[in-house]
Amino acid sequence: MKFTPLIEELIESLKILPSVGPKSAQRIAFQLLERQQKGAKRLSHAIDSALSGVCRCQQCRNFSEQPVCEICQSELRRDTRQLCIVASPMDVLAIEETGHYKGLYFVLMGLLSPIDGIGPEELGLDNLEQQLSHDSIDELILATSPSVEGEATAYYISEMAAQYQLSVTRLAQGLPSGGELASIDGKTLGHAFSGRKSLG
Amino acid sequence: MKFTPLIEELIESLKILPSVGPKSAQRIAFQLLERQQKGAKRLSHAIDSALSGVCRCQQCRNFSEQPVCEICQSELRRDTRQLCIVASPMDVLAIEETGHYKGLYFVLMGLLSPIDGIGPEELGLDNLEQQLSHDSIDELILATSPSVEGEATAYYISEMAAQYQLSVTRLAQGLPSGGELASIDGKTLGHAFSGRKSLG
Repeated sequence: MKFTPLIEELIESLKILPSVGPKSAQRIAFQLLERQQKGAKRLSHAIDSALSGVCRCQQCRNFSEQPVCEICQSELRRDTRQLCIVASPMDVLAIEETGHYKGLYFVLMGLLSPIDGIGPEELGLDNLEQQLSHDSIDELILATSPSVEGEATAYYISEMAAQYQLSVTRLAQGLPSGGELASIDGKTLGHAFSGRKSLG
Repeated sequence: MKFTPLIEELIESLKILPSVGPKSAQRIAFQLLERQQKGAKRLSHAIDSALSGVCRCQQCRNFSEQPVCEICQSELRRDTRQLCIVASPMDVLAIEETGHYKGLYFVLMGLLSPIDGIGPEELGLDNLEQQLSHDSIDELILATSPSVEGEATAYYISEMAAQYQLSVTRLAQGLPSGGELASIDGKTLGHAFSGRKSLG
């Protein structure tokens, strides 16, 4: 026995959500229909509006509701000679919240992963190369995560940037703030050692 | 710094989903916009269709796309002298899958919970009492979960049914205390059915 076709379709389409399996999809579907009808209406409306109203910034590829996003528009208040490469819009938010960086961004919307069919084109690296060739950038900061894909992507971009007159940097790796030395993994500790700085 | 208004609204409305907090809502929103645009469209469409196309069966209160649901319509093939009271449509599915029961259902769509404002009216118990008073039912099977609310609801219904000439039974054997009915394996549920005991 199955549920009605409309409920089955709702359950099926809920399975696209990350970490939602068949059982959770059922639970969510019934919760929406039983107790969250208003919320469900709001959700479907929000999905539709976001799908039609959110585009990519022509300059940095971040999500935006205008052709050029807020950060790229505020060039006067930002250091346009620094360009920080990140994997996702959430990374932009995280960096903005530190208040440590006033340059511009380029959002890859992913990391190189040939197995998933994500190559340089999917990350807009042709667009990035165009921006680099305009010679208005002094420093390219590679802020992808220190994972296999993140390192590979950073390496690929650094190779691409080598022909231009700019300094290419990578976020420092080392001890996370507040971490207990004894509980930090060997790889991180290794990076912390090799990247040690003179106090003098 | 925040995301764009449309993305913020999407994140907010994703928070109505069970066990989705602010961080998960962000992750889901970006996954939908980055990689799941088709799936997101399908989801919003499925929500709309289900909200407008799914109603309650006039007889058993289960979700249905017709005024009377499939199970209630197939009275000829089922034992109409047994009525099984369950809390949710998922419980109906779980019981149907055991193949141990051929009677009809009454779906409460919840359990008595005065703290959440769920009283007898919200569970359609007036409707249930009407059905009981028609004297076509021999056995009322109380298949609510063995939780505090489930027991209280079963007790309330058994009191209500006491004035009618019918046997009131309660699922007993095999149900682990505090467990959720819908997630129990078929064998256990089957044992519970065959070992049901009279409350009188």
